[in-house]
Amino acid sequence: MTIVYLAIVCGVIAVLYGFVTSRQVLSASPGNERMQDIASAIQEGARAYLGRQYTTIAIVGAVVTIVLAVTLGLLSTIGFVIGALLSGLAGFVGMNISVRANVRTAEAARGSLQGGLTMAFRSGAVTGMLVAGLGLLAIALFFWYLTGPAGLLPNDRKIVEALTALAFGASLISIFARLGGGIFTKAADVGADLVGKVEAGIPEDDPRNPAVIADNVGDNVGDCAGMAADLFETYVVTLGVTMVSIALLIRADAGELMRLMSLPLAIGGVCIITSIIGTYMVRLGRGGSIMGALYKGFWTSALLSVPAIWVVTQWTLGDMHKLLGGAAFLDADRDAAFDAITTGATDTATPAAMAFTGTDLFWCMMIGLAVTGLIVWITEYYTGTNYRPVKSIARASETGHGTNVIQGLAISLEATALPTIVIVIAVIAAYKLAGIIGIAFGATAMLALAGMVVALDAYGPVTDNAGGIAEMAGLEDEVRERTDALDAVGNTTKAVTKGYAIGSAGLAALVLFGAYTTDLATYFPDLTVDFSLSNPYVIVGLLLGALLPYLFGAFGMTAVGRAAGAVVEEVRGQFRDNPGIMQGTSRPNYGRTVDLVTRAAIREMIVPSLLPVLSPIALYYIVTAVDGQASGFAALGAMLLGVIVSGLFVALSMTSGGGAWDNAKKYIEDGNHGGKGSEAHKAAVTGDTVGDPYKDTAGPAVNPMIKITNIVALLLLAALAGHG
Amino acid sequence: MTIVYLAIVCGVIAVLYGFVTSRQVLSASPGNERMQDIASAIQEGARAYLGRQYTTIAIVGAVVTIVLAVTLGLLSTIGFVIGALLSGLAGFVGMNISVRANVRTAEAARGSLQGGLTMAFRSGAVTGMLVAGLGLLAIALFFWYLTGPAGLLPNDRKIVEALTALAFGASLISIFARLGGGIFTKAADVGADLVGKVEAGIPEDDPRNPAVIADNVGDNVGDCAGMAADLFETYVVTLGVTMVSIALLIRADAGELMRLMSLPLAIGGVCIITSIIGTYMVRLGRGGSIMGALYKGFWTSALLSVPAIWVVTQWTLGDMHKLLGGAAFLDADRDAAFDAITTGATDTATPAAMAFTGTDLFWCMMIGLAVTGLIVWITEYYTGTNYRPVKSIARASETGHGTNVIQGLAISLEATALPTIVIVIAVIAAYKLAGIIGIAFGATAMLALAGMVVALDAYGPVTDNAGGIAEMAGLEDEVRERTDALDAVGNTTKAVTKGYAIGSAGLAALVLFGAYTTDLATYFPDLTVDFSLSNPYVIVGLLLGALLPYLFGAFGMTAVGRAAGAVVEEVRGQFRDNPGIMQGTSRPNYGRTVDLVTRAAIREMIVPSLLPVLSPIALYYIVTAVDGQASGFAALGAMLLGVIVSGLFVALSMTSGGGAWDNAKKYIEDGNHGGKGSEAHKAAVTGDTVGDPYKDTAGPAVNPMIKITNIVALLLLAALAGHG
Repeated sequence: MTIVYLAIVCGVIAVLYGFVTSRQVLSASPGNERMQDIASAIQEGARAYLGRQYTTIAIVGAVVTIVLAVTLGLLSTIGFVIGALLSGLAGFVGMNISVRANVRTAEAARGSLQGGLTMAFRSGAVTGMLVAGLGLLAIALFFWYLTGPAGLLPNDRKIVEALTALAFGASLISIFARLGGGIFTKAADVGADLVGKVEAGIPEDDPRNPAVIADNVGDNVGDCAGMAADLFETYVVTLGVTMVSIALLIRADAGELMRLMSLPLAIGGVCIITSIIGTYMVRLGRGGSIMGALYKGFWTSALLSVPAIWVVTQWTLGDMHKLLGGAAFLDADRDAAFDAITTGATDTATPAAMAFTGTDLFWCMMIGLAVTGLIVWITEYYTGTNYRPVKSIARASETGHGTNVIQGLAISLEATALPTIVIVIAVIAAYKLAGIIGIAFGATAMLALAGMVVALDAYGPVTDNAGGIAEMAGLEDEVRERTDALDAVGNTTKAVTKGYAIGSAGLAALVLFGAYTTDLATYFPDLTVDFSLSNPYVIVGLLLGALLPYLFGAFGMTAVGRAAGAVVEEVRGQFRDNPGIMQGTSRPNYGRTVDLVTRAAIREMIVPSLLPVLSPIALYYIVTAVDGQASGFAALGAMLLGVIVSGLFVALSMTSGGGAWDNAKKYIEDGNHGGKGSEAHKAAVTGDTVGDPYKDTAGPAVNPMIKITNIVALLLLAALAGHG
Repeated sequence: MTIVYLAIVCGVIAVLYGFVTSRQVLSASPGNERMQDIASAIQEGARAYLGRQYTTIAIVGAVVTIVLAVTLGLLSTIGFVIGALLSGLAGFVGMNISVRANVRTAEAARGSLQGGLTMAFRSGAVTGMLVAGLGLLAIALFFWYLTGPAGLLPNDRKIVEALTALAFGASLISIFARLGGGIFTKAADVGADLVGKVEAGIPEDDPRNPAVIADNVGDNVGDCAGMAADLFETYVVTLGVTMVSIALLIRADAGELMRLMSLPLAIGGVCIITSIIGTYMVRLGRGGSIMGALYKGFWTSALLSVPAIWVVTQWTLGDMHKLLGGAAFLDADRDAAFDAITTGATDTATPAAMAFTGTDLFWCMMIGLAVTGLIVWITEYYTGTNYRPVKSIARASETGHGTNVIQGLAISLEATALPTIVIVIAVIAAYKLAGIIGIAFGATAMLALAGMVVALDAYGPVTDNAGGIAEMAGLEDEVRERTDALDAVGNTTKAVTKGYAIGSAGLAALVLFGAYTTDLATYFPDLTVDFSLSNPYVIVGLLLGALLPYLFGAFGMTAVGRAAGAVVEEVRGQFRDNPGIMQGTSRPNYGRTVDLVTRAAIREMIVPSLLPVLSPIALYYIVTAVDGQASGFAALGAMLLGVIVSGLFVALSMTSGGGAWDNAKKYIEDGNHGGKGSEAHKAAVTGDTVGDPYKDTAGPAVNPMIKITNIVALLLLAALAGHG
């Protein structure tokens, strides 16, 4: 239990860091009156949107709560509610600090680039540490309660179900937040650009554009709040499923199980500390490279995590060379034991053999850190302005809109290759070290750095907003130049987070599937389910699972297109009815545009968000009706893998491609291929517009979608078995 | 053997039909001198390209022939050579008739719409019947030789291997032809449009554009020759793998096996006859609907095929109610028998139980016909100008290039849903009727209509060319209007063929995997290979298999972008060096552009075409080195399914999306949303450009890619087992 307390303390430290740092941010000057005016309009819009979004989600949440209470009992219901509330809280707090930091960043950038960087990054770090801290606290406190005051054994089915329900709560909120926020931000962004830049010929963020405030609100509710909820979900699901897998797969006495199950919490805890240390390293070097400054923070955290993980693993497990599991096994038995476990042939009631050492787990976690580092590197290659991919899109812009988009799509497709190969190698290596548990710990180590990764990402929308405020408030040109420089890096860091989240999902896929098969063997011991690829229901499940990200992507893209069209109509109407707007003599009605986008985003997010919740349930019942329960479970299991096999590629291609398009535009704006206003620039603006819903709406929402599909399947099993 | 003779006779009839009909086509007037000049430039370019393409493929083919001769022996080598030669021949003959029919169609369209339609469709029908006829002859004659003069039993391993090698020959040629032709046609098309329509402001097919002949050559070498080779491959692989599956999975005496293995040939034979009858039904009705005229032909063939299939099945099998298989089994045993077979637990040496009747097979084939009909219907919905998808893209064009592309991508993603659901239902229904053999017969019935489907497709490039020739030769405006009307329908029929080919691949996936597992059990009886989804090597195989279509698509898109860029440079150079071109006083150098595109296409096609050949081999050896042969085979098997699970979606989305973009442009050109020259039209041109490599390069080439990956795996097994 000491280890759980350590995790709780680290979680509290993260929250305290958030408090202290947000105080620092808020104590900075919010600029002149004009800037404060603009900022408060953004704040108002963001708060109004989030309020409505949460109200809608609350209705869905209440329905789900009732269903869970009836089918799975009180503890799972509490878990669900905690997960849902904290996921919402993470997004809410992140948004709140972000809408205050934007104007302060603009003000700080008047002083120096370093000033702007520090302000923006600090506010990002608040969000980052709150995501990790709240995530850790949610699981650690709940686990403490269940194994302590509630007196349950660590591998009690109730704990397994309650932790799964906690993850479900986080996932459910996050898919709504990711998608709703994503639709909002891109509908406003695309709509504002189309009618402003393209039609009216006024620059981006021009205060005469009635959609300009909505665009800035979007950065906060989509790229900040939505992203924070998503990463909170990824954090909770990854740590949760690692603990659940230990409970399901390892047979050991309660003390050893407790230690092993606490280890992910301890890792999460110490990595929060290393992340906090890393945040203080973000400082411009002599070269003045912003990316370099952010990397200093990231690499400090990552490198410090190596010894930290070793120390805490040794402390938790005691002996790093002791064979873990129910008993010590010879090396030769190990493969057979894993086979028995991974094929679901074992259930927790019979002795399951599994043998690996603490050192093995340590190396698995090093693999996880390496995957994180490699994904950062690959993402920078595909989305950074210094490398072939972005340059090739910029070059293709010279021959027009069409070739820009063709090259961007080519890069999107290509960008899936290296991350997939990295994930594949990591899966095999971790599996060979410690089986499914090894893969789970790899994913846990990846997510342990979430605080730092989210900090880098949440920094982006703040700088984006700061630039908008600088423009609208008519600040000096050099301020806008500085915020633009800060923002360009934001495109890469945003792409990094998405690649990182979906990469961890790829790693966790087998773990989630392992949990599914083990649950199945536990709940339905008499049922033989054939997960072989030669079972046609497995093929059916794979195909229908693979369809989900496509259908989901189609919904997301259509929603943005439709809502952006509505924005265009609205803005055209305002220009028409009030010619004073374009002359700069009267103020456009910003609120009406914000309100329009709010309603559109809420309306459009519901159906696609329910798709991954209802599809697995529908598939199970239909196939069971056609060919019996064994076929139903086989199809359902295959769907879980189908959704990741296809979702990984859809998400990676969309997020990398979108980032590359955006930076190709920035690369041209930096004076290449004719610079701003050239034909190449116009083509690049088209590519950027196409990439917007790719990278910020459809692509990132695939990650929570995959998780939801998996978790719903696990809960369905529990509900069918009548446990509660 | 009588049945095989029947098939051979039908194949000969198809070839005769081709001869007679091409005579009819050639006897029509080739128009005035100017038209003939243009047509001969196109002919020359097409012949030059195909000559170089075949030379390059011949080198690869020779290397593969040597490898096969060493590893698999003489019969397989002969099979490979036959498949390769006839695949090449199908493309060559199709191209040859197409480059002659184009000018005659233009001339006929001067008379009437019906005249143009008849001419274009007849030449398409020549290609269609030759594809089906040559495909059927290749398998039937080879099978006749092997079971007759060579004296082999129908299920001799040598026959299995030789038929597989035949399919490999067809596939290998077709991937080069599809991809090379696809790169050629779209590089020329995109390049010509960019520099002509966009930069110089001259209309499409303006003779002043130096890339205009290359564009027309592209239609013939890509959409006609490449498509014909592709469908030839699909035909041969589907019929071949059905026969191989019967040989592998069914235990019966030689006479019954012979009858069953001849059945796919007989089905192919009678459906050639029904397709020929259908071609005579293509006539404009009172409404004057071109699509309606083509549908009359298609539906006649499809409906006539129902009784034809029933009669020939009854004739072949004798008794439609007799249980087929080694012995009659009770219904209750049936599932267990299938299970044993499908899990690969059986090998051909032990009695394998399998029971279904001729009636069951008949219904499976009806499912295949239904899938074909539904895919036609779904494709028309997604790509026709009368329905929501295309209209939504046209509407989105009003707000600019970006929203056009966004909506097009959304439609691309969405268009995968219905075909997938149709395929999933077909797989389950056919499997429940007659197991894997049932699915195989469903796919066979789909492909039996290939003659008609290819006819509808090959009609497209002819009308496209006819329009070009009409423009360049300065024919009356109404001629161009007629050819444009004929061409618009071509976009849908082209999309239909691609959906149909990839849909049949989806259906055949389980059959190919069944062949793989059965081969594995035969060749390596002592090896236990775990194809369960909980085996990490299965996940690895699925992920890497899923990566292949993405990487392949990236190569294809990049190649088109790069080659189109080179065309733009070349044309700009010609305009600059010779100002007389734009004034219409001097003739541009068409040949130099054709030559440039030829070289680019050949260069760019090689690496991506080798990807599916080498990837399965590399994966097997790497995984075997890491974790032994059982893991290697598991990963390889999973790769086969991964490539279809992801390839199905990539191909469907690209081909439907591309067709929808193209027709959205045509819909605007018909006077909607401002018509030609409006801002919406410019945006739609961008969408069309983006859709070009989607639908004509990367998307369609995924189909042969999937087959190659599967067949290489089967041949690898045989080679590893040292058979030959």
